[in-house]
Amino acid sequence: MSRQTNGGWLRVVGTGPGPDRWLTPETAAILAEATDLVGYAPYVARCPERPGQTRHASDNRVELDRARHALELATAGARVAVVSGGDPGVFAMAAAVMEAIDGGRPEWRTLDVTVHPGVSAMQAASARLGAPLGGDFCAINLSDNLKPWEVVEKRLIAAAEVGFVIALYNPASRARPRQIFDAFACLARVKAPETVVIFARAVGRPDERITVTTLGAADLSMVDMATCVIVGNADTRVIERGEDLEPWVWSPRSVAR
Amino acid sequence: MSRQTNGGWLRVVGTGPGPDRWLTPETAAILAEATDLVGYAPYVARCPERPGQTRHASDNRVELDRARHALELATAGARVAVVSGGDPGVFAMAAAVMEAIDGGRPEWRTLDVTVHPGVSAMQAASARLGAPLGGDFCAINLSDNLKPWEVVEKRLIAAAEVGFVIALYNPASRARPRQIFDAFACLARVKAPETVVIFARAVGRPDERITVTTLGAADLSMVDMATCVIVGNADTRVIERGEDLEPWVWSPRSVAR
Repeated sequence: MSRQTNGGWLRVVGTGPGPDRWLTPETAAILAEATDLVGYAPYVARCPERPGQTRHASDNRVELDRARHALELATAGARVAVVSGGDPGVFAMAAAVMEAIDGGRPEWRTLDVTVHPGVSAMQAASARLGAPLGGDFCAINLSDNLKPWEVVEKRLIAAAEVGFVIALYNPASRARPRQIFDAFACLARVKAPETVVIFARAVGRPDERITVTTLGAADLSMVDMATCVIVGNADTRVIERGEDLEPWVWSPRSVAR
Repeated sequence: MSRQTNGGWLRVVGTGPGPDRWLTPETAAILAEATDLVGYAPYVARCPERPGQTRHASDNRVELDRARHALELATAGARVAVVSGGDPGVFAMAAAVMEAIDGGRPEWRTLDVTVHPGVSAMQAASARLGAPLGGDFCAINLSDNLKPWEVVEKRLIAAAEVGFVIALYNPASRARPRQIFDAFACLARVKAPETVVIFARAVGRPDERITVTTLGAADLSMVDMATCVIVGNADTRVIERGEDLEPWVWSPRSVAR
């Protein structure tokens, strides 16, 4: 719904972690109708090319500028898709667009803006491995440009102590290569060394790499920005399937009484 | 991958919270190829009817029996889709199938079994409202037939204390109508009465009902089994948009230093 009459709209969408087979029909239709695509360059590059459509590909870490630019375009009458990888609601552009509206021009509040769900990286990773997120779980963004490291540490410790399975997003980057080392040092104070750990890199894409290891044995130099890290709880189990089949990983739905 | 040669397989899929526009192409293709659909009756009913396809619709709370039945069918050569609502990896059938394999017949380990991600209820709710899951968040299943209530309480308190946004699944049922009352009493010990709360019932379906309220003012009698409850953190905000437009709800990506 909107009070705008020039036909402009803004749709916040996610392509899923990679392949088209995870792109919802709703999002595919929006990408086909949009006059303008706005997003971090690698995500915009995943969208099919359409004649007449303008691509506004930007660097990462400029989410708020990107959101404001998209709102300006829609206000001027463009049909704008703001494109995230994964689900736009999970550590992606939906919150940035809302932040821009909240602090922005009054007319942005009545603009025709909608958000559309997608498949997030932790879900693709979980499916690929079996059911590591099978019990209660949490998702933590390790980017420390958004919050003090003490907050991240407090959340990691609390989540480990009460038995959440933990999904870690943005675990490492060139600017912040030590985040995942600090996070694991923190988790090792609470969790046993044999706790199951998954590194799910680029799930569903040609450069996919899956590693099943433990908190004590994990080689953290393998973790990059395209990796979703899942740290099991005390009940997370590995099912060995023999030499030529990859193991399953799953977390029970139940907790013993 | 599999060592089985009779063509049988098992695919664990989710339809998304309701409408076909959230069903991934991957899952649509699996539903079209399956000879047998296995699942909780309302989820099986959402799948398109296909000539020759057998539907095994069961009651809820029999997940493990259902998983074993599906594994038996696939072992006998059937192409079986185990159908959940939402994402099969989030409080749904993926963990039940893994549990059945882990404790079941050795040949189930080498069966052609795969899990496929979908859109979960909290993601559809988050998109519908804006970006309430915008920061770090956790998902807790309130069903106490799976774990002692003390575990649920400990997780709620810990999540509230360190500022996770909290998504609650299975908040109430005929058998357990008091769960959500107990959970909110618990959260009220830690969180301020003005904490933003969302009841997102049947998002995307004709009987959808969205309520934005606060921890102090929430009418918990509105919460049923089809409701996904999202409890904000201290920074979760409401954007009022005027009389004829629904408000946005969002949680910042960042935490102030």
